[in-house]
Amino acid sequence: DFSLGNPNLPPPDRFKEVLLDLIQSSKPGDHGYMPNTGYPFVREAVAGYLSKEQKTPVTQDEVIMTCGAAGALNVTLKTILDPQDEVICPAPYFVEYNTYVDNHGGILKTVSTRPGFSLDLDAISDAITEKTKAVLINSPNNPTGQVYPEESLKHLGTLLSEKGRSLNRTLYLISDEPYRKIVYDGVSVPSIFPCYKDSIIVTSYSKDLSIPGERIGFIAVNPGATHRQSLLGGLALANRILGFVNAPALMQRAVAKLQGVQADLAAYARKRKLLCDGMAECGYEFTQPRGAFYLFPKSPIPDDVKFVQALQEELILAVPGSGFMGPGHFRVAFCVDDETIINALPG
Amino acid sequence: DFSLGNPNLPPPDRFKEVLLDLIQSSKPGDHGYMPNTGYPFVREAVAGYLSKEQKTPVTQDEVIMTCGAAGALNVTLKTILDPQDEVICPAPYFVEYNTYVDNHGGILKTVSTRPGFSLDLDAISDAITEKTKAVLINSPNNPTGQVYPEESLKHLGTLLSEKGRSLNRTLYLISDEPYRKIVYDGVSVPSIFPCYKDSIIVTSYSKDLSIPGERIGFIAVNPGATHRQSLLGGLALANRILGFVNAPALMQRAVAKLQGVQADLAAYARKRKLLCDGMAECGYEFTQPRGAFYLFPKSPIPDDVKFVQALQEELILAVPGSGFMGPGHFRVAFCVDDETIINALPG
Repeated sequence: DFSLGNPNLPPPDRFKEVLLDLIQSSKPGDHGYMPNTGYPFVREAVAGYLSKEQKTPVTQDEVIMTCGAAGALNVTLKTILDPQDEVICPAPYFVEYNTYVDNHGGILKTVSTRPGFSLDLDAISDAITEKTKAVLINSPNNPTGQVYPEESLKHLGTLLSEKGRSLNRTLYLISDEPYRKIVYDGVSVPSIFPCYKDSIIVTSYSKDLSIPGERIGFIAVNPGATHRQSLLGGLALANRILGFVNAPALMQRAVAKLQGVQADLAAYARKRKLLCDGMAECGYEFTQPRGAFYLFPKSPIPDDVKFVQALQEELILAVPGSGFMGPGHFRVAFCVDDETIINALPG
Repeated sequence: DFSLGNPNLPPPDRFKEVLLDLIQSSKPGDHGYMPNTGYPFVREAVAGYLSKEQKTPVTQDEVIMTCGAAGALNVTLKTILDPQDEVICPAPYFVEYNTYVDNHGGILKTVSTRPGFSLDLDAISDAITEKTKAVLINSPNNPTGQVYPEESLKHLGTLLSEKGRSLNRTLYLISDEPYRKIVYDGVSVPSIFPCYKDSIIVTSYSKDLSIPGERIGFIAVNPGATHRQSLLGGLALANRILGFVNAPALMQRAVAKLQGVQADLAAYARKRKLLCDGMAECGYEFTQPRGAFYLFPKSPIPDDVKFVQALQEELILAVPGSGFMGPGHFRVAFCVDDETIINALPG
């Protein structure tokens, strides 16, 4: 089964130690309500780590703990969108973005990418209208595994500044980064905050710590954002009224002690090599993934749905690229046992 | 501070034991994704308990684990509401209901209650129109502490059946029950499922177990619901796309082992007696709360906002009844230390 993006590595040992320690030392009230944005000490720990990662001084005030990246994205969209506002997203992309934007009255507008799935700035520029409220990027990308280089993000920042000025409208750049720490070959994911001031990071610990069922993530707002204060107030309110109320208390406490800790990346690197080498030998065409745990090869026949059905007859489950607005391709998730990869390669 | 409904009792000892045991015995994948509706074994445990409580055989298929009752309510409203649909709610009520209904394009329509805050069926009947999609009740009630008797709920069920038939439209009864287990003087909260077939329970373990920060609750659909299958499918989808994805994994596992366990009710009963006796002596008029941990007395002056401001000058924090659409009253939350109650009574 190569169809699901469910991280198959166990959480790092430190995760279990931290949880045991937290529960053994718990005091009355430790599982109670806290501010809707999360515990101040947790947000401070996250802000400290982010400041280094983003090469920007971030304080706890700019961090809002959330119920995963999906929660973070819904809270952000609820806060910034007015009815019929448009959100631009390069395709292929995680299709649930459509429903997230639709939940809050917006419209998702997709733009094409360039060969190798890199950003097409001309396509983004052409897509911006007076209804545009945000551009939503996801790097490392699901389903392609691509990472946008810093230069490309800087150009995007410049483009959004110029367009925002000429439209007299704040355009947000939302960077969905749950795969930030899953990268290969020494690739590093550029910091978004220095590239554009009205940027917002949404992310989770689901993949870093292999705990997607626990729903813990956060939103970080660029300290230089034009409407910083009202944006932060809106996010706190949206977190509450969408029904999240707050990120799960115990997991907040846990991640505060796990900044920079992550599941064993070497295992994903090994699976990636196994899969890529094998698929290359079989003659599949693909751009080597630089992050995440997905390969997005060209379908050997134009109809990717038909091809994935044929794979299914060989008992191999993958997802047609059409499902990600990337027809003619298919997605293979390599967060599976090595054996599964080895056994499937003859297919 | 009597302003917040944050349960101040510690979780039962068994909660800590269960968590330690779950973490010590955890296997890889225990913190991973599961079906969006929750682990089947957790839903089975909940369904078993519910079957007794609701005097109705409930299976795991009718149970969806959620991120608290606020999550449960948002998921339910997202599923059933079309734009401009109306939800009827007796006042006074938890004001956040307004935003929950508004999140999904609906309109909350309040109706008055009778003296002692009991249901006014005539008022509900008059409020039902061809745009009505649901009636939302909350018993034990925040802010009044009242519990609707079975007879009243049966009449409500009959009313909704008749109105639904004449409008040729399914009317849902949503019962928000997070305080179900916080009751006094031997009061028992009636089961809603036998009273009306198109009923949906939304609730949480926040108050039972004193763990509101952990965000764990569930939706239960009446097995006899007219559109049972599509309703359940819609709820599972809504849970995912609203960004909850699933209820927090570890807490799901915990509550499966804690069915019927709850925090020390005697402590709330003691606080209630302390507060009610003291307030009665001071000459305040109120209906004795039969559940939850709120007292909703009449304000001694007509302007409840002014009165609460005067209390504030005595360093006593309460919430004006107007905030709950119950003007002329104020809410005192007695989930505080006994000392706090004793010291505040001279005020």
